Amino acid sequence: MTENSSLHTDTICAISTPHGVGGIAVIRISGPEALTITDKIWHGKKLTDCATHTAHFGTIVDPDTNEVLDEAVATLFIAPASYTGENVVELSVHGSIYVQRELLSLLLRHGARMADPGEFSRRAFASGRLDLAQAEAVADIIASDSRAAHRIAMKQMRGGFSKKIIQLRDKLVDLSSLLELELDFSEEDVEFASRVKLLDLAKEIHTEVTRLSNSFATGAAIKEGIPVAIIGATNAGKSSLLNMLLNDDRAIVSDIHGTTRDTIEETIEIGNYRFRFIDTAGLRHTTDAIEQIGIERSRKAIGSASIILLVIDPQEALSSEITDTLHNTDCSQILPLINKTDITAPGIIASRRAELTALPFINADNILEISAGTGQGIDNVKHRLTEHALHNEQNTGSEILVTNIRHAEALRQAATATERVINGVIQNIPGDFIAQDLRETIHHLSSITGQISSQDILTNIFSHFCIGK
Amino acid sequence: MTENSSLHTDTICAISTPHGVGGIAVIRISGPEALTITDKIWHGKKLTDCATHTAHFGTIVDPDTNEVLDEAVATLFIAPASYTGENVVELSVHGSIYVQRELLSLLLRHGARMADPGEFSRRAFASGRLDLAQAEAVADIIASDSRAAHRIAMKQMRGGFSKKIIQLRDKLVDLSSLLELELDFSEEDVEFASRVKLLDLAKEIHTEVTRLSNSFATGAAIKEGIPVAIIGATNAGKSSLLNMLLNDDRAIVSDIHGTTRDTIEETIEIGNYRFRFIDTAGLRHTTDAIEQIGIERSRKAIGSASIILLVIDPQEALSSEITDTLHNTDCSQILPLINKTDITAPGIIASRRAELTALPFINADNILEISAGTGQGIDNVKHRLTEHALHNEQNTGSEILVTNIRHAEALRQAATATERVINGVIQNIPGDFIAQDLRETIHHLSSITGQISSQDILTNIFSHFCIGK
Repeated sequence: MTENSSLHTDTICAISTPHGVGGIAVIRISGPEALTITDKIWHGKKLTDCATHTAHFGTIVDPDTNEVLDEAVATLFIAPASYTGENVVELSVHGSIYVQRELLSLLLRHGARMADPGEFSRRAFASGRLDLAQAEAVADIIASDSRAAHRIAMKQMRGGFSKKIIQLRDKLVDLSSLLELELDFSEEDVEFASRVKLLDLAKEIHTEVTRLSNSFATGAAIKEGIPVAIIGATNAGKSSLLNMLLNDDRAIVSDIHGTTRDTIEETIEIGNYRFRFIDTAGLRHTTDAIEQIGIERSRKAIGSASIILLVIDPQEALSSEITDTLHNTDCSQILPLINKTDITAPGIIASRRAELTALPFINADNILEISAGTGQGIDNVKHRLTEHALHNEQNTGSEILVTNIRHAEALRQAATATERVINGVIQNIPGDFIAQDLRETIHHLSSITGQISSQDILTNIFSHFCIGK
Repeated sequence: MTENSSLHTDTICAISTPHGVGGIAVIRISGPEALTITDKIWHGKKLTDCATHTAHFGTIVDPDTNEVLDEAVATLFIAPASYTGENVVELSVHGSIYVQRELLSLLLRHGARMADPGEFSRRAFASGRLDLAQAEAVADIIASDSRAAHRIAMKQMRGGFSKKIIQLRDKLVDLSSLLELELDFSEEDVEFASRVKLLDLAKEIHTEVTRLSNSFATGAAIKEGIPVAIIGATNAGKSSLLNMLLNDDRAIVSDIHGTTRDTIEETIEIGNYRFRFIDTAGLRHTTDAIEQIGIERSRKAIGSASIILLVIDPQEALSSEITDTLHNTDCSQILPLINKTDITAPGIIASRRAELTALPFINADNILEISAGTGQGIDNVKHRLTEHALHNEQNTGSEILVTNIRHAEALRQAATATERVINGVIQNIPGDFIAQDLRETIHHLSSITGQISSQDILTNIFSHFCIGK
């Protein structure tokens, strides 16, 4: 059940621009009374007489005191030609805290109500201006802080993802109708829905849904920052490398072994991607209990990392702790970095390289020589990181990446239900069981775009939006 | 010399909304090429073909990659019907850091230049849309955080102050012209400018200018926060009172004498005014060198305070340090607060009150009984503070309050020059000397509204604006 826009008889308002002081601030008002409420506090052209998509200069005046609060520009969007589908007024005022606060208070006193977080977008959804996945993408666009994350969210907001889901769903609905029809004539043993066609479609949908569902790991990483673990022996230069990548002094760098006891996370945009660096405690034998916890965390960080930067001091052999930890890791994930090349003899570097190449989890082509101290080779590291991210993104086999855990979960459940459809058809079970699994698949796909949704789910989704959007 | 708007051949852009993430952000573009530059990155109606004061939905597209950066609304203000008097486009986009940054970068790549702080307002001044005092008020409106400060800034922006200054100036210009004419005919000993009329006018202007100049003390206090010193013996409850007024735990409250060694400043809006509270070190004899410095600071704070809250422990007599310090203070400035009424016998309070009343710097009507511990009587304190502020504001005898130190200084110099005019006329000195003093008065008044201004002064004024205004 979707929300019904005709339910919205109240008019909401909120500050839509970022919190704080600035040149200008925009207060947005939406609802049937948006223009009439604004007219009460507005000296200038009567807004209810003005056309949609026009901007008007005037003053905000408290009708009780006749005091001028501010000079302002009111821009009108008359229903249904607005973001929410309702009448919308955007008041552009001076960005002072006082003006923003007083203007809100004036609007509230004259019939508007404070908008809940995301309520404008919820109304856009309710009026059919956006489907649910598109509305969710609005929040992702606002939060996105790298080109790749922004691109995925923009594609979703502009309907690419929804279109895909609706296509899959519509095919299922067609077949489901035939199957339901069959059930109505169940005594007559007719087969409206071709089992061969059904099987083909279910397989096609299963492949598509699974692919989308699997893209979540990559999609989420791109959205939140691609996790990169920095590991290596203590004093190999992990913190120096992180500092060099970040260009500041976030991690404590010292010459004492085991300086970085805890994992440190920092995110930075390189190329078109945001990376989340996890500088781990040095992996070594220790009796220090706190350091032991740090090492345990490092192992976990390695497990969840998309890329592992293995920092190697050429003067030291790889410890058994490190080789044990990385033993089963895919070599494409590991970027071995021979550090301290500026203070190490070429012969030592060469023999370290030979030793590394012999290891099963090291791909010789991936080895880079760097100096975290001087910055030499750091650009190569950055280049490899973005290459890796691009490769991962393309490798999902899906042109659409799922970044939303709610969508991923719905897709996973849709995949499971589709699997039951496939097995049911193969095992030739009665149509009504198959119909039920089909309905479930349709349900999960419909929940993504909000063709099916509950108030609870909607409230939960929109409560994570910012106020004013 | 004023700036000439025809000099602006370049187009500027900036984020005009507060810094950070929000529902929407507004990027403002101003200059002759504002529409053509935007058209290069805009998919939607061609903006150069659209009418002024219209809003258009479209997408921001990087023409080099064809990638959609965002969906946006472009609102157009065609010259001269805009804030700056130039062509202005306001692009309302999603308030993500990424979108804001990339949109700016797109505009810069396609011919716009980053605006300097206040450059939009500077252009508004250059094109004659605002005079200098009005432009300065824009920054004051943005910074204002109380009703009173906002009201003064709004009056100034809407031209109240400028009108007054221009009136005074115009009268002087008329007389000055007559005087200059007289000089041209100096051999003929004519008197075009009546000395009586000149004297009357000079006196009138002197009174007016002095009144405005004197209003600066009150105006600045309202703008920055009215200074209130909290003084009293150590342990009388000064910090508790401050906390109660502020409703938080900013000052350290303890039972050890001399806890508050340094002056603490906190501002809070009460009624329509912002007050700046200075919690001073207890005034008492001490050998502690650091505390001694604190006490010295307290004396200074008292000297510059508009109101003094004298906190009294009813169990203790006023120390000679306090009576000495306040000896010459106007009793209307002192609000004596008998504290700890919840834990003190009424008889003791009554005798303390009698003792206070006998002091020359105490007005018995001003004495309040409070408990900073329970909050009893705090509302009365707040009420008295706002009453005092209102009284001060009305008492300047000027309906316009000067809040800008540049204006105050110009008025002071205008007053000095006018004084010389008055003396010159009385002493019957030659017209050319009087004319020079008149010109100087005119110069100072003109500098306020910017009818006379230098590039250096303008740069200095607008550099204190925020970016995007």
